[in-house]
Amino acid sequence: MPLHNVMEDAVKDLLEKHWENLSVSCHCELCKADVYALSLNRLKPHYVRNQAGSMYAKADLMTTQARATILTAITESAKVVSAYPHH
Amino acid sequence: MPLHNVMEDAVKDLLEKHWENLSVSCHCELCKADVYALSLNRLKPHYVRNQAGSMYAKADLMTTQARATILTAITESAKVVSAYPHH
Repeated sequence: MPLHNVMEDAVKDLLEKHWENLSVSCHCELCKADVYALSLNRLKPHYVRNQAGSMYAKADLMTTQARATILTAITESAKVVSAYPHH
Repeated sequence: MPLHNVMEDAVKDLLEKHWENLSVSCHCELCKADVYALSLNRLKPHYVRNQAGSMYAKADLMTTQARATILTAITESAKVVSAYPHH
């Protein structure tokens, strides 16, 4: 049963775009992965099981509102990781 | 940034155990994947980025309460997929 959470792609996309400008105490790959995981845990998942479902869900996640919600989750997660880095 | 949602394992485990006895209109693999995806979309994700995080999160998901919550999500999702099968 291969499934995919398209929210992973949406968060990764925005995280890659904004990582360098994010206010975090450390810009290493471990902290980036922590921000990625924490952001995904704060957002509602969008699991799909095929390509068609994936396209519809991705379209949903490209709205201004959806991107703002994701960016807020990333910013909040960056604050937490900055305050409690894992290394 | 390889991450993993340990909730996927917990849902898959319970779904495999209870699939044959679940009240669904069709027991095919497509309907099973739909119930799997829908259940994951109803549950809070638990993304981790390493083995240690994975062990802690899995322990959390093995409590009676967590398993009851997951089984409820599976049962509710099975009802939806039975009412609106994709084939």
